[in-house]
Amino acid sequence: MLDVCLLGTGGTMPLPGRWLTSLVLRCNGRSLLIDAGEGTQIAAREAGCSFKNLDTICITHLHADHTAGLPGLLLTMGNMDRTEPVTVIGPNGIRRVMEAVKVIAPELAFDVRVTELEEGSARTISLGDWDVIAFPLRHTVPCFGYQAVVPRRGKFDPMRALEAGIPKQLWKRLQQGETVEGFTPDMVLGPARRGVKLVYATDTRPAKALYKAAVDADLLICEGMYGEPDKLPKAKETCHMMFGEAAKTALCSGAKELWLTHFSPSLNHPEDYLQSAQAIFPHTSLGKSGRKTVLQFPED
Amino acid sequence: MLDVCLLGTGGTMPLPGRWLTSLVLRCNGRSLLIDAGEGTQIAAREAGCSFKNLDTICITHLHADHTAGLPGLLLTMGNMDRTEPVTVIGPNGIRRVMEAVKVIAPELAFDVRVTELEEGSARTISLGDWDVIAFPLRHTVPCFGYQAVVPRRGKFDPMRALEAGIPKQLWKRLQQGETVEGFTPDMVLGPARRGVKLVYATDTRPAKALYKAAVDADLLICEGMYGEPDKLPKAKETCHMMFGEAAKTALCSGAKELWLTHFSPSLNHPEDYLQSAQAIFPHTSLGKSGRKTVLQFPED
Repeated sequence: MLDVCLLGTGGTMPLPGRWLTSLVLRCNGRSLLIDAGEGTQIAAREAGCSFKNLDTICITHLHADHTAGLPGLLLTMGNMDRTEPVTVIGPNGIRRVMEAVKVIAPELAFDVRVTELEEGSARTISLGDWDVIAFPLRHTVPCFGYQAVVPRRGKFDPMRALEAGIPKQLWKRLQQGETVEGFTPDMVLGPARRGVKLVYATDTRPAKALYKAAVDADLLICEGMYGEPDKLPKAKETCHMMFGEAAKTALCSGAKELWLTHFSPSLNHPEDYLQSAQAIFPHTSLGKSGRKTVLQFPED
Repeated sequence: MLDVCLLGTGGTMPLPGRWLTSLVLRCNGRSLLIDAGEGTQIAAREAGCSFKNLDTICITHLHADHTAGLPGLLLTMGNMDRTEPVTVIGPNGIRRVMEAVKVIAPELAFDVRVTELEEGSARTISLGDWDVIAFPLRHTVPCFGYQAVVPRRGKFDPMRALEAGIPKQLWKRLQQGETVEGFTPDMVLGPARRGVKLVYATDTRPAKALYKAAVDADLLICEGMYGEPDKLPKAKETCHMMFGEAAKTALCSGAKELWLTHFSPSLNHPEDYLQSAQAIFPHTSLGKSGRKTVLQFPED
């Protein structure tokens, strides 16, 4: 299962009562943060999200509303006596940004490892039992969405285990995916089952890679910078999405649920435009600071 | 008169409900900010402080809880269509920090001018009708306090103006400090009167330069990192002040009023230690986010 916590819903600048958009994902003892704008560490504390097990920070793109919280966040992690390294992943240029971060917060007692993503290409980041896949979006600068996938093994089949003459004391380890004494998990497991998939996309115009990533997602967290229909030219100009465009993305990709986020500071009342998005995709709702859910494997 | 707004009271890291310590001063159409930690722009908005007339940012020292808000703050100022330059003043190294800030927030449409203060020396910054004087403090890294001084001209003496044969239509301009048709203000004004003085000091141990700067100040805004008496060794080690030490500074310098700020994140209830500071200096109170006052010229 995947723990999900949206830390904020703002775009461009943090506002009183509206933290900038970022996301914490947790699964099997590992924790990942997507984006760190100014105030993200406060939003996390407010939401009760600890950064203790945080080992990976994914940055969507190098606009400051997605990165300017890095110096303070890393400093606070250092002040909590952290010594374990942190990996920061982002578009080309993230290395230079991290050098700048270290000028502002020079006293970190842990390593920061940096991975630059190649423009236009997808890349899989393994977090042990689950994966995060970066995929390119369509913004004014190179930008990546992130797809989190928790795979699920096939069902254990005791008949097959018996037939293969596998001693019972090895069954549990085989079930857990281990190869033991020459026996392999595929000898006792059925086909892989549907796992859990979450997609996070901001900042972007509608994009083929986004539809593709969001196919059958359990949850799509997607930017909706503007709700007002007359803002479409502005959305196109600044490479952002309308509420309706995010809803269409969810509908066409077959996502189960859509949370809208990354609202323009000019959008004082996102709730005014929710219904029009729900008319396109009924399972649309608004993100909010500290909104949580747990994505679980479906019942067999 | 000097408008004062304390934006926050935290030290080390921003917390929900406790912004990092920083101060906005306004006088005669010019506005100055001291320190910009993570979240300062949100605190300012919450307090109703506009950055429209902000032309000078003074940084006390280069710890990230005093600087990490600069990228977001400058970006937001840029997003408000600012074109006027901003001057950033701080200890040696501030230039390098500002280069890093511009890597994180590269798209600024206005100039950022940087002034580095020489370690251990005082320096006066003129803001037209008022001055800000940087003076050295005692911290783990080079650190400056700031003294804001609004001078006040002598009282207008119509008898002297008459005696000097100055035409009445020139009196007003002379009163305002202008030299007109060979007549100088000192020909019609009495001796300079007491103006307004504010002193801001964080982060520091008690220091001679601080006492000196705070002599007869109308308001001393001073760090009190710790209230608990058993934290004195920690305060010494990290070069911070106890509530009682700040109160002694106010008492000995003859300041009129003391606001405590820059509380440690470990100090959950600063109010528990206020009385002990008031026992030393009765006009001690706690800073709080958005606390405002107006320092006015005294009645003649």
